[in-house]
Amino acid sequence: MLPPKSEFSEWYHEVIQQAEIMDIRYPVKGLYVWLPFGFKLRQLVYSKLKELLDRDHQEVYFPTLIPEELLMKESEHIRGFEDEVYWVTHGGLEPLDVKLALRPTSETAIYPMFKLWIRSHADLPLKVYQIVNVFRYETKHTRPLIRLREVTSFKEAHTAHRNYEEAEEQVKNAVNLYKEFYDSLAIPYMIFKRPDWDKFPGADYTIAFDTVMPDGRTLQIGTVHHLADNFAKTFDIKYETPDGDHAYVHQTCYGISERCIASLISIHGDDLGLVLPFEVAPIQIVIIPILYKGKERDVMELSKRLYERLKPFRVILDESDERPGAKYYKWELKGVPIRFEIGPREAENNEVVVSFRDEKRKFSVDFDHVTPEKVFEWGRNLKERLKRRAIESVRGRILICRDIDEVADAVERRFVSLTYSCNECEKDLESYGSVLGEMFERPEWIDVRLSDRCVMCGGKGYLVGVSKTY
Amino acid sequence: MLPPKSEFSEWYHEVIQQAEIMDIRYPVKGLYVWLPFGFKLRQLVYSKLKELLDRDHQEVYFPTLIPEELLMKESEHIRGFEDEVYWVTHGGLEPLDVKLALRPTSETAIYPMFKLWIRSHADLPLKVYQIVNVFRYETKHTRPLIRLREVTSFKEAHTAHRNYEEAEEQVKNAVNLYKEFYDSLAIPYMIFKRPDWDKFPGADYTIAFDTVMPDGRTLQIGTVHHLADNFAKTFDIKYETPDGDHAYVHQTCYGISERCIASLISIHGDDLGLVLPFEVAPIQIVIIPILYKGKERDVMELSKRLYERLKPFRVILDESDERPGAKYYKWELKGVPIRFEIGPREAENNEVVVSFRDEKRKFSVDFDHVTPEKVFEWGRNLKERLKRRAIESVRGRILICRDIDEVADAVERRFVSLTYSCNECEKDLESYGSVLGEMFERPEWIDVRLSDRCVMCGGKGYLVGVSKTY
Repeated sequence: MLPPKSEFSEWYHEVIQQAEIMDIRYPVKGLYVWLPFGFKLRQLVYSKLKELLDRDHQEVYFPTLIPEELLMKESEHIRGFEDEVYWVTHGGLEPLDVKLALRPTSETAIYPMFKLWIRSHADLPLKVYQIVNVFRYETKHTRPLIRLREVTSFKEAHTAHRNYEEAEEQVKNAVNLYKEFYDSLAIPYMIFKRPDWDKFPGADYTIAFDTVMPDGRTLQIGTVHHLADNFAKTFDIKYETPDGDHAYVHQTCYGISERCIASLISIHGDDLGLVLPFEVAPIQIVIIPILYKGKERDVMELSKRLYERLKPFRVILDESDERPGAKYYKWELKGVPIRFEIGPREAENNEVVVSFRDEKRKFSVDFDHVTPEKVFEWGRNLKERLKRRAIESVRGRILICRDIDEVADAVERRFVSLTYSCNECEKDLESYGSVLGEMFERPEWIDVRLSDRCVMCGGKGYLVGVSKTY
Repeated sequence: MLPPKSEFSEWYHEVIQQAEIMDIRYPVKGLYVWLPFGFKLRQLVYSKLKELLDRDHQEVYFPTLIPEELLMKESEHIRGFEDEVYWVTHGGLEPLDVKLALRPTSETAIYPMFKLWIRSHADLPLKVYQIVNVFRYETKHTRPLIRLREVTSFKEAHTAHRNYEEAEEQVKNAVNLYKEFYDSLAIPYMIFKRPDWDKFPGADYTIAFDTVMPDGRTLQIGTVHHLADNFAKTFDIKYETPDGDHAYVHQTCYGISERCIASLISIHGDDLGLVLPFEVAPIQIVIIPILYKGKERDVMELSKRLYERLKPFRVILDESDERPGAKYYKWELKGVPIRFEIGPREAENNEVVVSFRDEKRKFSVDFDHVTPEKVFEWGRNLKERLKRRAIESVRGRILICRDIDEVADAVERRFVSLTYSCNECEKDLESYGSVLGEMFERPEWIDVRLSDRCVMCGGKGYLVGVSKTY
């Protein structure tokens, strides 16, 4: 049995294991094992992400090991990472001549090659991505999919452009791509421009996607960085302009980790376990025959006919010996979106009982009406319901705050506080919680009716978020 | 321009770069960058491998980092790897309490979890696989895809069974699976049982797939290990038998690395570059319009109609400004299996000129006859031709040797020597070359008419291979 989702931390810890996403018993802190079911979910979610990127990015793979000299080259960058880098110092029984870092992220591995690849303006824009494992020596509390020492599924994209403006255009493209990705998972998000002190080390600025977890803490689920020509200068990445001059490229990079799966599990799940959108569910449909002595044949026959018809989907016909109740429990835990039950009455009437993972009700439909088109329609409707419910629940953890006491109180009670601040005062808000930064784009489901005056000094302000974060 | 393939080592070095498989300029020995075209080839080849494994294995992902104590637990295993393991000793600026190994292979990461997963005979057989990066501190000469410090694409499968015999059955299943895989790539192989001194560290025995590279050296492209209960005893992996007793499981593991792609490139390639089987070619078809002034419109129209019709394939319509000859050169280098040329005469006659990457001839076909079915048929025929040619070329590097002088001479001249040896004398053959072991299964294309007497002592022998190896 799962703890209720209202005890979110315990629920999360248990659902990861009981739904067979990961085995958390690997004997090193912050490292976990992807179980087959979890791995399949990962694959389906990342297929969606790849599909979006493949429209105009090329997939590559760079080495995991980065020599010390390269990693250290960009001074701001390394200052941001030096406490978290794992160092390989020995090969076999011998010390290495050159220390090698396990990539915490791949800018310093990729950009020396960009220098070799980019010659002229015709080589631009250059857009590549890779999905790789990256490593962080986390000293804080670790948690599966959320805070890891090996991030096994880091999708990082890297682009190079002719100038600041074209790179900025790409920042917008990347933001739109991530919006499309999270919309496809029915995950609500807010988009902020991070304050300067919290931007990616080496970036000009950072745009971040945050969602709100059921306990009211925000989870950063994607970041897009405008790098300007900061790395280009460090790694000497120049191109020949149409006029024959030489100029530094301007770059962007943007990443999503398996936190996208943490959010999927956390936002949609309920007291019974996972609730998954149809498109990414490892098992989309389960058919459960309800057998009574003497009536088995007809029930099994109709069940098998349904199974055959739905084979284009990821469908299971659960013929095991368990009681129906135990089967419901098991497949609910795994978030199977659509369940069919077929008993003697259904067999007799040529119908099936349908229920959806997110609803309590069951209903009967004529067997012949269960077509693949109908199933797709049910899948789409389910996602729409999940999206509405998710927005409802996220919105319920956000408070619009008119003064600083409200901000303090909101964050204290684990709500996300939206309020107005200004460049001068933003930093002071850090004493109340983490400042998420200036809202980059207001989601339509957030309605803010406030004066735009900074909550601290009363000067002209902009909308910012303050929260406890993961 | 490529060096001729007869200068194999130089040819290989160049074709990897010019065909854009990898960039070899990454500034650490033995680490390379997968370029987009190479990465796509990798993905297509590994999709095939995954498809075969997914029939009855489950995909998982285990951590990259293995604590020292686990890696050291199986004494033979660690003796086999201790010179090649990369050690992570520092996290940030601090030394780690426990040294972490970068997995050289994952037995010691996976089997402690098998101990937790396996309770009863009902949990067996257990079959999992993962495709991961593994690391070896290679001190020898490194080479892209062949001898690496980061093997980026190691497919390793691990299984557990009730007893020795059932594990042995799985060894045969794995051998058949690898045969099917390499047959699908038209790569000829020989299968040997490795001599005891060359088996996988910790295994009961090792079955290996070897192909013969154009320079006459053998390349090990897959291994299957019977582990008996060796690791089960070390990691205490027991199950409850139907009788209620407890017994150790018996295990197998088997692996294929990106050497499968090295063999694909090396065996099929020619003086012009890559030659790829249709199924795994990143670009399967190229359409080249031959434009003459005033006739552009009709040519482009027919070219586009062909492109639209062939869109289910990975097809390119090369509309660039280059001369046709330059286009031929470029797509030949990349191994595109099928090329269509359409000029004014073709446009007028409603036909297209077809040529295949492995043949010199061109021929015309009626436009309407170029259907997807026809293209599949051409693809199948091309693979059959590649297979025949590959067998021919591999067979040309194998000599059947009747006495020890012939063995010495054959290996000296970079041929694979097949001869008879016995348990007593096999080790002595090592002074002539690497002993590949007893032939496990004789390919139909090798005909050996020899007495089965050991070439050294004249006693009862078995067929063995001796060669220079990669």
